[in-house]
Amino acid sequence: MLRTLAAGASVCSIYMFKAGSYQLRAESQYMAEPLTSAADMAKSSTLMRVRMEKFIMSLQGELCKAFLEEEEKGEWRVDRWTREEGGGGITCVIQDGHVFEKAGVGVSVVHGMIPPAAVKQMNARGKNLPEGEEMPFFACGISCVVHPRNPHVPTMHFNYRYFEVEESSGQKRWWFGGGSDLTPYYLDEEDGKLFHTTLKTACDKHDKGYYAKFKAWCDEYFFIKHRNISRGIGGIFFDDLDSPGIEECFAFVQDCGNSVIPSYLPMIRKNKNKGYGYAERQWQLMRRGHYAEYNLVYDRGTKFGLYTPGARIESILMSLPLNAKWEYMHTPEPGSKEAKLTEILKNPKDWV
Amino acid sequence: MLRTLAAGASVCSIYMFKAGSYQLRAESQYMAEPLTSAADMAKSSTLMRVRMEKFIMSLQGELCKAFLEEEEKGEWRVDRWTREEGGGGITCVIQDGHVFEKAGVGVSVVHGMIPPAAVKQMNARGKNLPEGEEMPFFACGISCVVHPRNPHVPTMHFNYRYFEVEESSGQKRWWFGGGSDLTPYYLDEEDGKLFHTTLKTACDKHDKGYYAKFKAWCDEYFFIKHRNISRGIGGIFFDDLDSPGIEECFAFVQDCGNSVIPSYLPMIRKNKNKGYGYAERQWQLMRRGHYAEYNLVYDRGTKFGLYTPGARIESILMSLPLNAKWEYMHTPEPGSKEAKLTEILKNPKDWV
Repeated sequence: MLRTLAAGASVCSIYMFKAGSYQLRAESQYMAEPLTSAADMAKSSTLMRVRMEKFIMSLQGELCKAFLEEEEKGEWRVDRWTREEGGGGITCVIQDGHVFEKAGVGVSVVHGMIPPAAVKQMNARGKNLPEGEEMPFFACGISCVVHPRNPHVPTMHFNYRYFEVEESSGQKRWWFGGGSDLTPYYLDEEDGKLFHTTLKTACDKHDKGYYAKFKAWCDEYFFIKHRNISRGIGGIFFDDLDSPGIEECFAFVQDCGNSVIPSYLPMIRKNKNKGYGYAERQWQLMRRGHYAEYNLVYDRGTKFGLYTPGARIESILMSLPLNAKWEYMHTPEPGSKEAKLTEILKNPKDWV
Repeated sequence: MLRTLAAGASVCSIYMFKAGSYQLRAESQYMAEPLTSAADMAKSSTLMRVRMEKFIMSLQGELCKAFLEEEEKGEWRVDRWTREEGGGGITCVIQDGHVFEKAGVGVSVVHGMIPPAAVKQMNARGKNLPEGEEMPFFACGISCVVHPRNPHVPTMHFNYRYFEVEESSGQKRWWFGGGSDLTPYYLDEEDGKLFHTTLKTACDKHDKGYYAKFKAWCDEYFFIKHRNISRGIGGIFFDDLDSPGIEECFAFVQDCGNSVIPSYLPMIRKNKNKGYGYAERQWQLMRRGHYAEYNLVYDRGTKFGLYTPGARIESILMSLPLNAKWEYMHTPEPGSKEAKLTEILKNPKDWV
């Protein structure tokens, strides 16, 4: 959703971020200058929009640093871009690395007037905002997709976002949304359990009902209807979270964001040097074809972004894999590891 | 569109078609048993639905034979499938050949009740059919996408179809649609001219205004809005053709279909053994990424098919390339051949 609002984007700074050069930015844990100026941040430090921006900037920095420690070759390309209508983003991408075939961590902090089409889309999912009028909005979020090279390391995606709109009556509305999900190419029960258990722990701290609800929502959301399979083995997904209160929601979203590294990094370390052959690579590429299909055909944020004139397409489509494959009538051998994964994708299971 | 109606499809015959085995079917120019039985065909031989089915079956046979003569390794996989609701199709695919990385020629001949959603989509483009009721329909068509391995051979796509519906008043409506378009990876002016000139000759025989109108329609239709580039260098595209009369329309569509081989085969022969390197292959793969984007995000037939429960997904998605690539922020070197092609994709030119 956020990504969609980056209309008329222009890139104003690009640099490469290597492990060795991290010291250069040691004064800051951020990957680039925040979109909101230091002066404005200081002035409004108690506002949620500022607190959330600081949180996602820190999380982006931590993730980029942690992922880079796993990479033997490669560096983050950091693009800081702004949009004419207000705000911008910081898109960090590693491409063609030894460990990460393609990985992106993007932050966006945008504001301006929300177009009526976006209001309509929000109301379609029950938001009940006044239609036909442009409303001032603020949105910030972090979005990440990691496509590792080794087929034994799953693809991971997460996104956490905060939204504010102001109705013409002057009433302000806010909500959080997001989620985190895993797409393995080969099933490793231990990885699946680690991922889901870490998320459940974060959820349980806030509401004992969250995990079951958001896990089911995730399975439903990341479903490739035309193939009758899930994109992956799920995780959590939620939207329009505005209760019990803004502090509670923010605390929950922070715990979710902070769960990314413990839920995923261990499986990179464990699997990144495992041996694999041509057949495993081909299977991974075909599953990446399904991933691209999902993102281009169903994903709300991607679709809405593509239809928004002037959006920063490269930031929206950074989620697509570096390589993908479509083989006509491919069917995994019965009893194979590929067939076993397909079975799970057709029948989402309980992981905790 | 046609492809979308293949709900509840099941494959009832599969075989491989090699050059050497062509004699086996010498009694017929067809790739498989037609969907309509020989008895029904003989009984209704003057009906347009039967004449069109015979034409597309012959064209499929001719194309498969002609393409196979260019292939050094590979064979057509022929899948004859039927749908519960009536009719079926014959999907022929070569995959991972020396010349054709992936090529598909599909025929479908389907009938049954047209779902209200499809009527709505047709009315959105001005068909003015009665809404909210299921109508009996018949549709048949041929669809083909060729993704050659050598980046100096363009990708080619065409589709020609015939549609009949019967309103509850008893009134019958019919129309033809289709088109043919070319997607080069490197610009060869001679190839572009051959393709467009051959199509213009076919058009001019029937209406001096057709080529200009259908060329513009093609440029508009195959446009990747979010990238602000065309999918390729166009060709012709038309829909809802129902004048001046059914005989004239059929004659025109036959001439279009018969133009495929002369408009495309020479560039396969000329370019299939040209040398190319890693950089050319990478560029081809990235452009194939754009091709996949177009088909998944915009193409009417593909989209509608994907949203139709039970459609034969493998026949719908045979148009996707075997391999595709998405490189973050790829920009061709100024002045390079890749930049030259991109320029043409941004500003469609006149070819004749």
